Amino acid sequence: MAPSLPWVEPARTFLGATADWEKSRVVLVGAPLDVTSSFRPGTRFAPQRIREVSVGLEEYSLLFDRSLRQAALFDAGDLLLAPGAVGPSLDRVEECVAWLAAQGKKVALLGGEHLLTYAAVRGLAAAYEGLIVLHWDAHADRRQEYLGQELSHATVMHLVARLGIPLYQMGIRSLAPEELAAVRPLLRRPALPPANRDDNPVPGGQAGSEDVSGGLYLEDLLAGLWAVLPALRSRPVYLSCDIDVLDPAYAPGTGTPEPGGVTPGEIFRAVGHLPGVNLVGFDLVEVNPLVDVGDCTSLLAAKITRELILACSLT
Amino acid sequence: MAPSLPWVEPARTFLGATADWEKSRVVLVGAPLDVTSSFRPGTRFAPQRIREVSVGLEEYSLLFDRSLRQAALFDAGDLLLAPGAVGPSLDRVEECVAWLAAQGKKVALLGGEHLLTYAAVRGLAAAYEGLIVLHWDAHADRRQEYLGQELSHATVMHLVARLGIPLYQMGIRSLAPEELAAVRPLLRRPALPPANRDDNPVPGGQAGSEDVSGGLYLEDLLAGLWAVLPALRSRPVYLSCDIDVLDPAYAPGTGTPEPGGVTPGEIFRAVGHLPGVNLVGFDLVEVNPLVDVGDCTSLLAAKITRELILACSLT
Amino acid sequence: MAPSLPWVEPARTFLGATADWEKSRVVLVGAPLDVTSSFRPGTRFAPQRIREVSVGLEEYSLLFDRSLRQAALFDAGDLLLAPGAVGPSLDRVEECVAWLAAQGKKVALLGGEHLLTYAAVRGLAAAYEGLIVLHWDAHADRRQEYLGQELSHATVMHLVARLGIPLYQMGIRSLAPEELAAVRPLLRRPALPPANRDDNPVPGGQAGSEDVSGGLYLEDLLAGLWAVLPALRSRPVYLSCDIDVLDPAYAPGTGTPEPGGVTPGEIFRAVGHLPGVNLVGFDLVEVNPLVDVGDCTSLLAAKITRELILACSLT
Amino acid sequence: MAPSLPWVEPARTFLGATADWEKSRVVLVGAPLDVTSSFRPGTRFAPQRIREVSVGLEEYSLLFDRSLRQAALFDAGDLLLAPGAVGPSLDRVEECVAWLAAQGKKVALLGGEHLLTYAAVRGLAAAYEGLIVLHWDAHADRRQEYLGQELSHATVMHLVARLGIPLYQMGIRSLAPEELAAVRPLLRRPALPPANRDDNPVPGGQAGSEDVSGGLYLEDLLAGLWAVLPALRSRPVYLSCDIDVLDPAYAPGTGTPEPGGVTPGEIFRAVGHLPGVNLVGFDLVEVNPLVDVGDCTSLLAAKITRELILACSLT
Amino acid sequence: MAPSLPWVEPARTFLGATADWEKSRVVLVGAPLDVTSSFRPGTRFAPQRIREVSVGLEEYSLLFDRSLRQAALFDAGDLLLAPGAVGPSLDRVEECVAWLAAQGKKVALLGGEHLLTYAAVRGLAAAYEGLIVLHWDAHADRRQEYLGQELSHATVMHLVARLGIPLYQMGIRSLAPEELAAVRPLLRRPALPPANRDDNPVPGGQAGSEDVSGGLYLEDLLAGLWAVLPALRSRPVYLSCDIDVLDPAYAPGTGTPEPGGVTPGEIFRAVGHLPGVNLVGFDLVEVNPLVDVGDCTSLLAAKITRELILACSLT
Amino acid sequence: MAPSLPWVEPARTFLGATADWEKSRVVLVGAPLDVTSSFRPGTRFAPQRIREVSVGLEEYSLLFDRSLRQAALFDAGDLLLAPGAVGPSLDRVEECVAWLAAQGKKVALLGGEHLLTYAAVRGLAAAYEGLIVLHWDAHADRRQEYLGQELSHATVMHLVARLGIPLYQMGIRSLAPEELAAVRPLLRRPALPPANRDDNPVPGGQAGSEDVSGGLYLEDLLAGLWAVLPALRSRPVYLSCDIDVLDPAYAPGTGTPEPGGVTPGEIFRAVGHLPGVNLVGFDLVEVNPLVDVGDCTSLLAAKITRELILACSLT
Repeated sequence: MAPSLPWVEPARTFLGATADWEKSRVVLVGAPLDVTSSFRPGTRFAPQRIREVSVGLEEYSLLFDRSLRQAALFDAGDLLLAPGAVGPSLDRVEECVAWLAAQGKKVALLGGEHLLTYAAVRGLAAAYEGLIVLHWDAHADRRQEYLGQELSHATVMHLVARLGIPLYQMGIRSLAPEELAAVRPLLRRPALPPANRDDNPVPGGQAGSEDVSGGLYLEDLLAGLWAVLPALRSRPVYLSCDIDVLDPAYAPGTGTPEPGGVTPGEIFRAVGHLPGVNLVGFDLVEVNPLVDVGDCTSLLAAKITRELILACSLT
Repeated sequence: MAPSLPWVEPARTFLGATADWEKSRVVLVGAPLDVTSSFRPGTRFAPQRIREVSVGLEEYSLLFDRSLRQAALFDAGDLLLAPGAVGPSLDRVEECVAWLAAQGKKVALLGGEHLLTYAAVRGLAAAYEGLIVLHWDAHADRRQEYLGQELSHATVMHLVARLGIPLYQMGIRSLAPEELAAVRPLLRRPALPPANRDDNPVPGGQAGSEDVSGGLYLEDLLAGLWAVLPALRSRPVYLSCDIDVLDPAYAPGTGTPEPGGVTPGEIFRAVGHLPGVNLVGFDLVEVNPLVDVGDCTSLLAAKITRELILACSLT
Repeated sequence: MAPSLPWVEPARTFLGATADWEKSRVVLVGAPLDVTSSFRPGTRFAPQRIREVSVGLEEYSLLFDRSLRQAALFDAGDLLLAPGAVGPSLDRVEECVAWLAAQGKKVALLGGEHLLTYAAVRGLAAAYEGLIVLHWDAHADRRQEYLGQELSHATVMHLVARLGIPLYQMGIRSLAPEELAAVRPLLRRPALPPANRDDNPVPGGQAGSEDVSGGLYLEDLLAGLWAVLPALRSRPVYLSCDIDVLDPAYAPGTGTPEPGGVTPGEIFRAVGHLPGVNLVGFDLVEVNPLVDVGDCTSLLAAKITRELILACSLT
Repeated sequence: MAPSLPWVEPARTFLGATADWEKSRVVLVGAPLDVTSSFRPGTRFAPQRIREVSVGLEEYSLLFDRSLRQAALFDAGDLLLAPGAVGPSLDRVEECVAWLAAQGKKVALLGGEHLLTYAAVRGLAAAYEGLIVLHWDAHADRRQEYLGQELSHATVMHLVARLGIPLYQMGIRSLAPEELAAVRPLLRRPALPPANRDDNPVPGGQAGSEDVSGGLYLEDLLAGLWAVLPALRSRPVYLSCDIDVLDPAYAPGTGTPEPGGVTPGEIFRAVGHLPGVNLVGFDLVEVNPLVDVGDCTSLLAAKITRELILACSLT
Repeated sequence: MAPSLPWVEPARTFLGATADWEKSRVVLVGAPLDVTSSFRPGTRFAPQRIREVSVGLEEYSLLFDRSLRQAALFDAGDLLLAPGAVGPSLDRVEECVAWLAAQGKKVALLGGEHLLTYAAVRGLAAAYEGLIVLHWDAHADRRQEYLGQELSHATVMHLVARLGIPLYQMGIRSLAPEELAAVRPLLRRPALPPANRDDNPVPGGQAGSEDVSGGLYLEDLLAGLWAVLPALRSRPVYLSCDIDVLDPAYAPGTGTPEPGGVTPGEIFRAVGHLPGVNLVGFDLVEVNPLVDVGDCTSLLAAKITRELILACSLT
Repeated sequence: MAPSLPWVEPARTFLGATADWEKSRVVLVGAPLDVTSSFRPGTRFAPQRIREVSVGLEEYSLLFDRSLRQAALFDAGDLLLAPGAVGPSLDRVEECVAWLAAQGKKVALLGGEHLLTYAAVRGLAAAYEGLIVLHWDAHADRRQEYLGQELSHATVMHLVARLGIPLYQMGIRSLAPEELAAVRPLLRRPALPPANRDDNPVPGGQAGSEDVSGGLYLEDLLAGLWAVLPALRSRPVYLSCDIDVLDPAYAPGTGTPEPGGVTPGEIFRAVGHLPGVNLVGFDLVEVNPLVDVGDCTSLLAAKITRELILACSLT
């Protein structure tokens, strides 16, 4: 940068990011993996677009009465992933995530397609003993193969479960027939929490006392989260959030939208429950700017990212 | 099809459709009537677009714990309707629907504009004695004429009512001044159902006991349906669903969107009430892919169609 | 209008229109007929949209070194045409055009679909003895019926020819097999004009000397016009211009775009040839704002309209 | 207009507007101010676009069982504001609003950007002693300067407060760090109203008894309105409604959308509370047709405008 | 298909396709390969979209005075290719193309991305001794690897050349620095053909007499084709046409548009030169409906496909 | 940047930019001025969008057989300009441009709206004695005021001329009536250059020998440039290129598109003439990504920018 051009804007990073690597606690990394999408591709453009629209938001969050400046966020840019190269791309994601954990940083991973969660969990499992995966999604992603492929956005949670990591899925509102047999024993329709369920925070002791063997909670994200919160509190937790857990009215920019999802208000209330949990990182995946309308999905993703970064910084 | 090309995909039909006409119970027919729209035309493209996006959904429905494969759906393609020819088009729809009823098939009719409901009801009235029409819509469609035309999407329910068919309308949130005089005696603001109104299924005996003289229920679709369910249970029922009963945020792709409608969740809960009813067919009309955004209206229409087909197959 | 609100803008009319009916020489009328389109409907929105974007142009034309103010244009608004009512709509167009001719006004008709040309020619034929129709289009529109309909945008020039009006068609680059038999004797591939063909104006005596029995000139609009100019000079001429004579890159907003058409430069050169002709009116049809991109078709239509109005005012 | 062309449509005004200035009670004025937007410009196109889409609605409102015809609305067109000229534009808005108040008319102001509210309040403050401003928005707009500018859409409510006008803000869900210090004492998280909060109308006596020193109510629009209604009832009230108070799913067409807002149903319920208030005028600002999708924001704005005009006419 | 529903439309195939496999001479196959695109993905949707819009064209071609009905086209549908599986997909394309050649059919291959050409050429090379590849494109596609991948749309012509197949490239207007060293010896700037270059057909004897060692002709497609026609006449020829050879104004729907390309008129004139050549098949690749505007790229692709099918059927 | 994250992509700068300020010869600066647009705003987004899409091009130019790497381009980012603040923004542009000239750098300025050219010329006039301005545009931009404003995109060339700088305008195809009186004496319709006009480079001696008093050349950009090249050769030249000099089919993303402009091929040929000129800087203005379609305008702007940077580096 020219020393004598003080009036120029710096290059685009995520809203409120610091330039101080040493002091940073949370590190944002873009992972534009976009290979196995079966319907509408384009998730490769999400990390950059989410950064760009993030400047339309404030750094300060009313939800947490706290600013991103306090979160010490470092934006490391995007991983270079060769188009069409699934294996090497997953290796690079795993290597990056593991390295960040070794540096004591929490990771905020912006996809890209959902398959990268498999790599991220592999990268974190060694660093965090007893890691639990929390999964918000419209789909269970538990096929055993998809059109003959084992590595796919549609098989990613099958792959995670096979690693022996406890897995709590919620918001699920669509299941493929071939998933059904495998997941039927795991299905839960959670009871609604007590009357004050809309309030933050959830008093931990009043929730159910699930064990850590995992479960698949249908539709109601908040009821599902309420049910599993006690189980989450004793372990390091990684959250994988597929943007299609939201209704397509709020998040049309995604590859396989599924009508009938949650609202932004429900997502933000759910995020408001996380500070009681040891959140060691998260990913936000399947945002597809190529099919977005008016950037509303990218903008919503940016706000969810802001709140999740703050949740990470608070635990 | 060339016998030695086993690797090619079949042509596009609706998700999960069977090739076995004999065993089919529900027959999907597209009726791309698109003549009398007063604002934004384009509904002629809906049947094909809904089929195309339907492959992004699963055949299995969590709502009914049942798959389209079990519904024995046959997709008969689209009716050939000459542009601008209202009368002959309506005759063809009527003839088709009557013939399907005579074959013992239930009809799933994808519009096209709403006027086709008049033809469909004429075609079914002879086959099903005591037929009742259930109507979900933002507008009452009960003008007596529209810009001098008697046959119009804006007069269709006036035409149906004139056939002497009992008519239950719900979700209505917009009325033209000229409709008001005629429908004022029919207006109902239904009481909310008891506390568990969100649960499926509705225990029939607890609902109100309407007679079969019809009614026009404002705004709250579920409360209206709850009120009329007892009346529906003793008769064959045809459902006409105008996609604009949904809020434009969920269904922007329609000719005359009306702000303030129901959510997909409410529609699916309403559909969940239908298996107790003898549903002999349905139409889904006024989807307009030409003004849709990101195909979200077509996709939502496809999911509603899936659930309504399953509801037909269960009764 | 409130007398004490001098700062408000006037309502939208076409660029440069006068409020003085008496002195006006050219009258612009919108005819939003939009019934028989076989592919993508939406032409009903064209007249208003063309007016709106026209304000982005200047009133002064470099082509004619003359301003719209000098043309004494009156903008009469749009005809009220009931959706779906073909016959009454055509009658209204005919009546309006005939009345304007009787008032000594030249008509600038903005469609709407092409079928309205049939009505306009009927309305003008009585007023102007020896009327000739000049037709610029990608398609010949000379089917005898279309999906069983006699009145259609695809049959309009067959209808005009049947009136006994000499018809010169040019720019045609697509023919239906069923048109071919009828029009084969009329096909012309015009020789290119002499070397200075790009210059304005065309010296009349040097062009070919066609009789007035009409003809169908393929593809090259300027060569075709050059060939027929002598025949046009002795008679009143009505020009019907279908926007799809232009390449879809310049005019994507139309119902049945046909790749490979003329450029705006060619159209403007062609219009530059018209002042030597007794142009008694024109229509510009098949602009469809609903499928336009960035209003570029409407804007090009507005500029063509400006130049054609000036051409009318010069003859 | 030509006397002998009785079949032409009148020029575009807002739905149901009267031509009788003398008898009119509410006057709609467009103020296409569009200068200081920091992100996506385009609000200058809103007044005209809202008028155009308003014809897709009915004049009759179910919410008030009353028609726009009864409201005696006059549509005065748009103010002529030179692009880039902030000061003169604000002066013109102020002058217009003051003049309308002097004529005994209530003003319905369609923006344009939010900064115009400052001019409108200046224009009304002299005419209505004790004026109170009610503000519905996603953002507090209380910065003291924005990128060195004092006059900005981001400072408008700071400017209003500095005039000494009591200011009640609600629906706020985003605050800039630099606003926080100033507004912390004003922050309120209102208790939910009693169980029947969804019903209309709110029985005034049961609400809280705020004084008229103003306040900033977070997020829940209805709860905030419920809390301040008693304070509003004794004074003339001007409502400033920023369309971004709605969730971007319902109103994507705006410059700085903020995920997580209210629904159309909540807005209409809030408007339903206003007839008990002496509403002397309102503005609806920040609609941006340039980034709208399928005109859904403009259409929603038109419906809100209809209901607010009716609310004005009822008080 | 139900025997008693004679009024339903057949499923979507390409315009004018026959159902008679035995008599067919040209077979259209969709190959929705969409894995290695480095910029904007979406070519997987092209085969189906091109079919759909093809019905907006006529079956009769003025260029060849011949109809598709005479070409005996069979539309075999799309190959099933697993997302992300490059190797197996290429094998399937090769197998399909080889099998069609063995059946004596000419292949019309609709991509999908350009990499499939490598598979098609492998499949045809055995069947047609002395095969020559003609390549129309904006880019040379002769990188040796792309981001570490050997199989890529950017390396495809390097792969073809390595097979030892003579390769004539034309229309090229963009070269990567890393391609330059390899292709410099092959660069040609062809002289313009004689004055009547715009006329069809090109008299063969007057053109240049290239040998069959291939060449890379810059920018001017017609001049390049003119130069190589003599070399093409003695051998079986496969044409690979990348849609981005056209200017983005005509074909915006493609992954890596390059400003400054040829016009549709030039393409059609080039196709008009092909009947003198033994054209044994062709592909049309890199159409991307996901980033198209108003389907104009798909429509242009459909028209080019029609003309190329006719060219195949004439040789 | 974290030292140990070597796998991340660098932040977005223009294609092929160097990080070495000292050695750089051409400096790219974004100037997102977007205040006085009278029609469709949005040019503020152009600099960033042009950078983003530039990566879809190659660094190597066939036109100059030279790569951007050889041009030693430094991308300094965007100037921070407060929305709505015309005067301070112009001062900042002037200051920046003057400073760059003082450092011996040539400036590549990406707008933003055209008004910034006034500031740039002021900044350069002191540094380069005898500076001449070359202006490519659809509009003359020579109004004396626009809606009462003196500083406007519509007055910018009037302001430049008033500085006493010789001004050569070409490509102009639209004039406002109020401009006409002032510019009539300057109007030129240049004779076509000799037969080889399409070839590069233009042999200087054969062109006309204009003096340096300026001129306004209508429509044909190449003929105009040919006529003024001799006059340009003895002086430092600044080029101001308004993207709307191109036809809207190629550059729809601009505020006031004017049908009938030049093609990309003509622009590139014109740029090919510049290396004989002492080009000391240029601007490319009025690109508006907000109304672009498929980024085609931004992409074309990026390619023109690449060629102009190379032209600067060659002189």
